[in-house]
Amino acid sequence: MACSRNDPRIDYHMDENTRMSDKSGTTANTVWHAHKICRHHREFLNGQRACLLWFTGLSGSGKSTIAGLVEERLHEQRKLTYLLDGDNVRKGMNGDLGFTDADRIENIRRIGEMSKLFVDAGVITLSAFISPFRSERAAVRDLMREGDFIEVFVDAPLDTCEGRDPKGLYQRARSGEIKNFTGIDSPYERPDAPEIHVVNDGSLSPREVADQVVGYLRQRQFI
Amino acid sequence: MACSRNDPRIDYHMDENTRMSDKSGTTANTVWHAHKICRHHREFLNGQRACLLWFTGLSGSGKSTIAGLVEERLHEQRKLTYLLDGDNVRKGMNGDLGFTDADRIENIRRIGEMSKLFVDAGVITLSAFISPFRSERAAVRDLMREGDFIEVFVDAPLDTCEGRDPKGLYQRARSGEIKNFTGIDSPYERPDAPEIHVVNDGSLSPREVADQVVGYLRQRQFI
Repeated sequence: MACSRNDPRIDYHMDENTRMSDKSGTTANTVWHAHKICRHHREFLNGQRACLLWFTGLSGSGKSTIAGLVEERLHEQRKLTYLLDGDNVRKGMNGDLGFTDADRIENIRRIGEMSKLFVDAGVITLSAFISPFRSERAAVRDLMREGDFIEVFVDAPLDTCEGRDPKGLYQRARSGEIKNFTGIDSPYERPDAPEIHVVNDGSLSPREVADQVVGYLRQRQFI
Repeated sequence: MACSRNDPRIDYHMDENTRMSDKSGTTANTVWHAHKICRHHREFLNGQRACLLWFTGLSGSGKSTIAGLVEERLHEQRKLTYLLDGDNVRKGMNGDLGFTDADRIENIRRIGEMSKLFVDAGVITLSAFISPFRSERAAVRDLMREGDFIEVFVDAPLDTCEGRDPKGLYQRARSGEIKNFTGIDSPYERPDAPEIHVVNDGSLSPREVADQVVGYLRQRQFI
């Protein structure tokens, strides 16, 4: 997004020393200058490059946990982050949406649009949603500016995820109480070429896995 | 929003030194601890208290201009801000909405929900929408936590606003090309008790008006 004083989003400009003495606001004496604060100013202030870390994976793969640990590590380094997940999105912004195909698409669209604003705010934005379909992940990627979307595939075998089952959802899916549950009776489409692929099958601690994500950000100079 | 490790939004906790060696994730050895980064951590990091500055007023009253100048002043003080306005909201998140009564309500609801997340992110959030109806401003206030919503009434006489008419909208409303235009053929309900009431009729420069808003934030120790 442009940020100079020529930013087309600025309707009028206002000079520091100019009073709006003329009602019309259109004479040469009342040209306005607002030095609009933009993404680049905020990134400079925060000492980071903003991006969207899009965590995808099965329920129980550890998306939220790893994302939370990445936030913690980044916070230690005085980086500003924000995590969008089912807790703060489904209960608020997307509380009006159900689980039909149309609602799923709208759910992801709104999360994408919100993420875009957070990235514009200069924030390293994390999201943790199963997002099982390539098409929905591609839709968010397409919304974002080139290089802003970082797909993080949290890869764990189904039986590991089912064994963890922190919310008891697999059990309910196996019993037929929940329909269309990803991994059971609805597919999870593995990312073809995620920017980051971490394996969270228990061979590394979640913190070690999170450090792989942080390492990527450091290597690519986001932080 | 709670932020301790007892935060109910944390489904499971993960200890720094614990490996997920047990598939079930439920034994005493695999209790997880994630020290979830929350609003208060981010506010501390940013050296500010977050809030929502809700600018309301007629088209041409100077909402966006004043908000932009407030951002500029705050940025000079290394405070993190984000401005939600027609440019970044109507074209993105709310691009699917028109101007029916139902769509207006949904428009404001989504802006309120987004603002809530930005405030939770520790950001001093500004919004600049005419928001002519008391009910819609009250709806956003109700969404926010007590003390987080700061209504900023940008007060300028209709003829001043119409004289400025930076987008030529009053002219189009007068000619009948635009219907239901606030101030012309649709009411603007003045705030009864806004937290901040600034007069932007040309007697002060926009920067002086913006400084009144910044002064309020300083006085109330948001910054």
